[in-house]
Amino acid sequence: MSQSHPFKAYEEISDDLGAVERKLREVLQSDVPLVTEVTQHPARGGGKRLRPALVLLGGRFYRPEERERLIGLATSAELIHMATLVHDDIVDRADKRRGRDTVNARWGDRMAVLAGDYLLGSALALVAEWGTQEVISSLSRCVQEMAKSEMRQFGGVNRLATTEADYLDWIEKKTALLMAESAQLGAMGSGAPPEIVGPLWAFGRAVGLCFQIVDDLLDLTAPPDRLGKPAGGDIRNGVSTLPIIHALAESSERARLKAILLDGQGSDDLEEVVGILRRSGSFEYAFGRASSFAAVARHELDKLPTIPARQALSDMVDSLLYRTH
Amino acid sequence: MSQSHPFKAYEEISDDLGAVERKLREVLQSDVPLVTEVTQHPARGGGKRLRPALVLLGGRFYRPEERERLIGLATSAELIHMATLVHDDIVDRADKRRGRDTVNARWGDRMAVLAGDYLLGSALALVAEWGTQEVISSLSRCVQEMAKSEMRQFGGVNRLATTEADYLDWIEKKTALLMAESAQLGAMGSGAPPEIVGPLWAFGRAVGLCFQIVDDLLDLTAPPDRLGKPAGGDIRNGVSTLPIIHALAESSERARLKAILLDGQGSDDLEEVVGILRRSGSFEYAFGRASSFAAVARHELDKLPTIPARQALSDMVDSLLYRTH
Repeated sequence: MSQSHPFKAYEEISDDLGAVERKLREVLQSDVPLVTEVTQHPARGGGKRLRPALVLLGGRFYRPEERERLIGLATSAELIHMATLVHDDIVDRADKRRGRDTVNARWGDRMAVLAGDYLLGSALALVAEWGTQEVISSLSRCVQEMAKSEMRQFGGVNRLATTEADYLDWIEKKTALLMAESAQLGAMGSGAPPEIVGPLWAFGRAVGLCFQIVDDLLDLTAPPDRLGKPAGGDIRNGVSTLPIIHALAESSERARLKAILLDGQGSDDLEEVVGILRRSGSFEYAFGRASSFAAVARHELDKLPTIPARQALSDMVDSLLYRTH
Repeated sequence: MSQSHPFKAYEEISDDLGAVERKLREVLQSDVPLVTEVTQHPARGGGKRLRPALVLLGGRFYRPEERERLIGLATSAELIHMATLVHDDIVDRADKRRGRDTVNARWGDRMAVLAGDYLLGSALALVAEWGTQEVISSLSRCVQEMAKSEMRQFGGVNRLATTEADYLDWIEKKTALLMAESAQLGAMGSGAPPEIVGPLWAFGRAVGLCFQIVDDLLDLTAPPDRLGKPAGGDIRNGVSTLPIIHALAESSERARLKAILLDGQGSDDLEEVVGILRRSGSFEYAFGRASSFAAVARHELDKLPTIPARQALSDMVDSLLYRTH
């Protein structure tokens, strides 16, 4: 739950985040016990609730008194996120997430397909209840873009040919787009003008890029018990993240790195890969890119009114950039 | 394509159905060739386009001049249907549909998960463009209900314990709900009053029940080359349809039938099952139930104004009830 990620930013919205947790349970409470059990499973695993936090804080910039609407929209953003996680865990054949069995690991791929659809249907019903048509359209396109980008990645060519530009495009669609949507959702849902909605969207996008680069870094460097899943998952799944892309271009050991990536799957190989990345300064490079997106995010905040939510969003950027798991 | 199902009902809307076909291609035309190929695959397989036809004909009862809106909504109904087919084919491990490879058979389950999500996102973006919030809410709930009912079915108990009431509830959620939504969609999207929307919804529901009972009958009785998939699929998948439920309750050979259903999977068994069902009058019974839902559908039409679309909907009922594949 959010308590396990005591971001300073969350102090500003702790009551509302509690209401989002209750709303999540309520929306996923079905008259069919199996449906409740399977669809609440990803919610019970906790998570940072970043997207609801973005909706709630972004919503403070325009008609913050529309609290019920903000809680509904914040819940729908988390439900969309959960739906994509449940389906992505099928695609990635992931067994563990946040230290717990994934839906596909516990109930099988086929049940996970349906559970993701149910979560998505629930999310959009909630968006229809609390959002404008602009909001619904924006979120539907986001679902479409996320699936498209996964399809392209999954059906993709040789990963060793990936460039930094391809990587940034991929994490933009995979992660940053829904975070951008979330950051603008609360304000857009209340009819805020472009000078509020625009910076919030750009802020969410930059935070999303920063967040995903750090996430991919941690996949290689954080202890597995803190990650809640095995380290090096991206390498095993054939996904080239930023440190790898940097090292393949810059490292004096790139021939060896390429050979490992094309052949190896063992944990000994992972240690060797990490060694190569360390020596080529690839982790520092990736962290530098994450920092630059954090700077973009802070710059967007400067365009918004000075209210407590603005400081909270700024704190959130720091927490995400400097986190260790 | 619809040309291969020359329902008399379609003469009334043939231009509009052509526009729906073009809109389907247009919506699924992506800048990523793989995405276009995979997501257009289910559309290229043809199909009866029942849901678009229901939207178009239902839309004739209120502000029929809003043609672009009707075509948008009709296309979105078909996209939602396609999304559920692509995901259901994963769940049912189906290789063939309408004589062609399913998406999961050709590109694998993981790509099919993403393709279904893409189709659903596209559908809802189109609904957001052309529908009211009421329409969006209604369709989102429908997606949720369909997934819920599949989850319950899939995680279900011993199929031999299924009753006719359970079966009707299951096909209502699986098929009739989206057809009810489709029938009311065009009128609801233009703000039609309850005396138009209500009978259209009830008509679509009854047609959906009639359609699915006949579909399940044909799964046992139609030649496989006309079905475009192997016969007896429901039996192999452990799904009890109406003739089976009837025979398990009424046939003098029910002990033998039960034994076959619990053990057998071969095509010899299928012949024996069909023989038992024939001798117990179970096909006639199921057809009788389908006919009674057809009568309900026609009764709902009587509540609507006498325009050509009303006759077309009535013709559609007959075509669906008396079809042979």
